Amino acid sequence: MMAWNGRAVRRIGFVGLGAMGLPMAKNLVARGFAVRGYDIRAEARAALSAAGGVAAESPGSAFDGADAAVLMVVDAAQAESVLFEADALAALAPGAIVILMATVPPQRVVTIAERVRAAGYGFVDAPVSGGVVGAEAGTLTIMAAGEGDLISRVGPVLQALGGKIVTVGTEPGQGATAKAVNQLLCGTHLAIAAEALSLAQTLGLDMDQMLDIVTGSAASSWMLKDRGPRMLETEPRVTSAVDIFVKDLGIVLEAGRDAKTALPMASLAYQLFLSVSGRGFGALDDSQVIRAYRALGERPVP
Amino acid sequence: MMAWNGRAVRRIGFVGLGAMGLPMAKNLVARGFAVRGYDIRAEARAALSAAGGVAAESPGSAFDGADAAVLMVVDAAQAESVLFEADALAALAPGAIVILMATVPPQRVVTIAERVRAAGYGFVDAPVSGGVVGAEAGTLTIMAAGEGDLISRVGPVLQALGGKIVTVGTEPGQGATAKAVNQLLCGTHLAIAAEALSLAQTLGLDMDQMLDIVTGSAASSWMLKDRGPRMLETEPRVTSAVDIFVKDLGIVLEAGRDAKTALPMASLAYQLFLSVSGRGFGALDDSQVIRAYRALGERPVP
Repeated sequence: MMAWNGRAVRRIGFVGLGAMGLPMAKNLVARGFAVRGYDIRAEARAALSAAGGVAAESPGSAFDGADAAVLMVVDAAQAESVLFEADALAALAPGAIVILMATVPPQRVVTIAERVRAAGYGFVDAPVSGGVVGAEAGTLTIMAAGEGDLISRVGPVLQALGGKIVTVGTEPGQGATAKAVNQLLCGTHLAIAAEALSLAQTLGLDMDQMLDIVTGSAASSWMLKDRGPRMLETEPRVTSAVDIFVKDLGIVLEAGRDAKTALPMASLAYQLFLSVSGRGFGALDDSQVIRAYRALGERPVP
Repeated sequence: MMAWNGRAVRRIGFVGLGAMGLPMAKNLVARGFAVRGYDIRAEARAALSAAGGVAAESPGSAFDGADAAVLMVVDAAQAESVLFEADALAALAPGAIVILMATVPPQRVVTIAERVRAAGYGFVDAPVSGGVVGAEAGTLTIMAAGEGDLISRVGPVLQALGGKIVTVGTEPGQGATAKAVNQLLCGTHLAIAAEALSLAQTLGLDMDQMLDIVTGSAASSWMLKDRGPRMLETEPRVTSAVDIFVKDLGIVLEAGRDAKTALPMASLAYQLFLSVSGRGFGALDDSQVIRAYRALGERPVP
């Protein structure tokens, strides 16, 4: 199906050195991979260089002669731009493998994979869960989909990045599908934590005590434990932005639409994130979805 | 405020020996309390008797001379019926304390407490979280509200039943309010787990693998871990019924209405539970809220 140069993956071109991508690229450097990285921001390139990688001046330069390309960009449009518009793809070594780790709608992954394969390269769909903390610690959950031999060849790359690597299928798009289900849960849990804590505040409950109760009972969720305390802060530090969930719940709804499957809870959660973003708070920490409830509960001027 | 007979609580009248109440009453017996219990079902009374309690033939007989009355009935109407219609209240020892542990709307708790106090008895609002497993193990989370000296006097009773006892306030209704916030999270998390797993099934994902991923990632919730596997069964064992969440989310929405607070996610989750109950499945395990999604996703006859 493709010409494989027979080498183990050693040289990696990495595009997208953001809050997730940079620590991931550093982990690859630390495991002995030769990493050439590109990001639109000069300071991100410099940070990779300082960590022992090579700062490339373009996606094509990052991919030049690489055995594998890792894409940790923001969305499908960026992935397509990097691969096809800049023609970075052709710079890869013969038989190289493209590993798409960004969160992208399943149908877009299928389309991208087809174009990559048509150009003679391998493709692995490998989105992640675990956030910045997981990216830094190399403990991400990776939902990988691709042909068995490709998954085997990129195994050492994935193991450098993740603590739990699950092969969910052989077809590109299946990883993205699993990630969509994961994000449905994450996004709606965030909205619910906001609704519950907002109600508790309105009813005058002691919030520290309330958090202690609900994070220790059947009411608990990972998001409630992690984001709940930050919902009670006015300007908490940002580990992931409101707009990430505008994007990710959008992908969830797109996956539902493509499968003609109604997702009422996710749809409502999406509207809440969207309203907060629309009021100008898209770059704030995602815990600030609670501002949707603050707006709903605003009282008239007496 | 009331005539207290000065004794420590030793004799307990317990009404409501259901899936939660019976193991709770047994735990009180095991801790050395003299428990007279009543339930409308003869087999429940017999089970308490076999465990060392006394089977009473009426609420009044259960409360006769008791230092404390524990109510673990289904709803507010049952609590009012037991206390006021059967006039069981007057059978309690002077200065006895009524401990309402059922899930009841906060405003109804306030009303019940007023009537109990007017009759010269103490009142503690003490709803629980933790389900049948917590009731059996004596590890319930108890959200107690009442005057400090009353909470102190019933302390040994609550400690026999719960692993975590949180005094959330001094006013009856505050425990019920905390419980409402807790149930908002539990009920909506159930609906979301159903939505996510239903989507994963529609998209053809391997369900064991998917559960493994989402219960180990930021997508996890207590409900997803506990009820997720049972959502994939057709007729799972019942630990708590669909109709319990029709009731409890109804109480959540009532608390929201009384506070004039919009609860869009809880409102939608309530509709999903209601639709499943309306189709005749109210007595099934609450994991079967997934049947709402099965109905939404039903395909036309070809």
